[in-house]
Amino acid sequence: MIDVVLIGHGNVGSHLARVFTSTKGINLIQVFSTRKFDNVNPLESIRIVDLAELNKTAEVYIVAVPDDAISKVSNTLSLENKLVVHTSGSVSMNEISSKHRRGVFYPLQTFSKGTTVDFSEIPVCLEAENKQDLNLLKKLGHLVSKNVSEISSKERSEMHVAAVFVNNFVNELYHISEDIMKEHNLDFKLFKPLIKETANKVQSLSPASAQTGPAKRNDKKTIERHLGQLKNKDHKEIYELLTKSIINRRNND
Amino acid sequence: MIDVVLIGHGNVGSHLARVFTSTKGINLIQVFSTRKFDNVNPLESIRIVDLAELNKTAEVYIVAVPDDAISKVSNTLSLENKLVVHTSGSVSMNEISSKHRRGVFYPLQTFSKGTTVDFSEIPVCLEAENKQDLNLLKKLGHLVSKNVSEISSKERSEMHVAAVFVNNFVNELYHISEDIMKEHNLDFKLFKPLIKETANKVQSLSPASAQTGPAKRNDKKTIERHLGQLKNKDHKEIYELLTKSIINRRNND
Repeated sequence: MIDVVLIGHGNVGSHLARVFTSTKGINLIQVFSTRKFDNVNPLESIRIVDLAELNKTAEVYIVAVPDDAISKVSNTLSLENKLVVHTSGSVSMNEISSKHRRGVFYPLQTFSKGTTVDFSEIPVCLEAENKQDLNLLKKLGHLVSKNVSEISSKERSEMHVAAVFVNNFVNELYHISEDIMKEHNLDFKLFKPLIKETANKVQSLSPASAQTGPAKRNDKKTIERHLGQLKNKDHKEIYELLTKSIINRRNND
Repeated sequence: MIDVVLIGHGNVGSHLARVFTSTKGINLIQVFSTRKFDNVNPLESIRIVDLAELNKTAEVYIVAVPDDAISKVSNTLSLENKLVVHTSGSVSMNEISSKHRRGVFYPLQTFSKGTTVDFSEIPVCLEAENKQDLNLLKKLGHLVSKNVSEISSKERSEMHVAAVFVNNFVNELYHISEDIMKEHNLDFKLFKPLIKETANKVQSLSPASAQTGPAKRNDKKTIERHLGQLKNKDHKEIYELLTKSIINRRNND
């Protein structure tokens, strides 16, 4: 059994709490959260509201708080030489106070409260200062996920940039598409199956082989017509830049 | 029973053939395809290789050929005053020869040969010159899909621009992300669950409520760091433009 304390119950923390309590081999002994749970929620019985009540015997302390609070919260913990990890994709391991043995337990997924995801499919990216802690984190990782990787702070930082493209920027393209549809009184809902299938395709194909459309065909007539149809200057600029990006690949083929 | 002839067996045609042969109420009487099917494929028995052999008694002739061949193929058909429809998202109904009663039967999805999609979830966008033909296309549409809409050529043309954003451009962002990962010897596969969940989120949330990340938070420190990490000029430019697009929404909130 791995004894775990969870500090924070936000988007990431709440998903971790759920998977830790339902996984054999993990003993979630405390959850720090200032917000009360339902009385019927078993988490309520292990909830603490004051970090002074922290159990000092856990093997791993997981700090699942906003990026800019990690340093401060880890400093506050009255622990010494204990394994303290954060769950962030963009914060260096070294932002955790050096009074702890430091590590990272980063589930690479976009979480929203209320939506459930199959945790076993989520890549867990691990880092630790020493081999023994890394092994413990690997053991914990393998209990909850089929996909566990050792990733350094430097690598995690590069990954974070790349993740912004597939997550935030992709979502912005959905948003722009919704703007265009609304402009013409058309229902954005029509695109939902297309959006899903576009994401499904790259589960088995490379983005290069999944690509279709006017830019891929270098179909200048259609591209010109589309640019003429776009009224919004910013939409036009994004259309031009991404079209150029696709056409340039074609030339490199 | 609706008697249908299918002209073309490419990405769209092959999916239509599959769903038409497995749907009650539809009688697929001929498929024009110059390529032979397996002998065990029931389509082989109704395949024609010469448009001169065209059955003249069908109720609907579906021309599922590349966009730039629609006009020519429809001209070639030795039919008169028959309902001939194309399946394209970007071609006007009027590109079909005026010797036919014209229409459009456009399944809004990205098709690849070899991948199966649940056709009943695909929005089918219809158009016809006269009410009776529209009703017949609606009847056909409802037999294969839960989601049938009447969409004019003008609307379809606007939709096509918006579809490029959620399909081709989104796929290009996947590709750029893969480039960045490769550059740092990281495995793009790590992003597959994130890609899927980003698409899943907007099935129930609006793109506005699904958005997260540094641009959404206007986190200038992280944005600057990311721009510093991006070595490729084009990647940097796309990062800047999409970040600006997200931040501008923030200001309009």
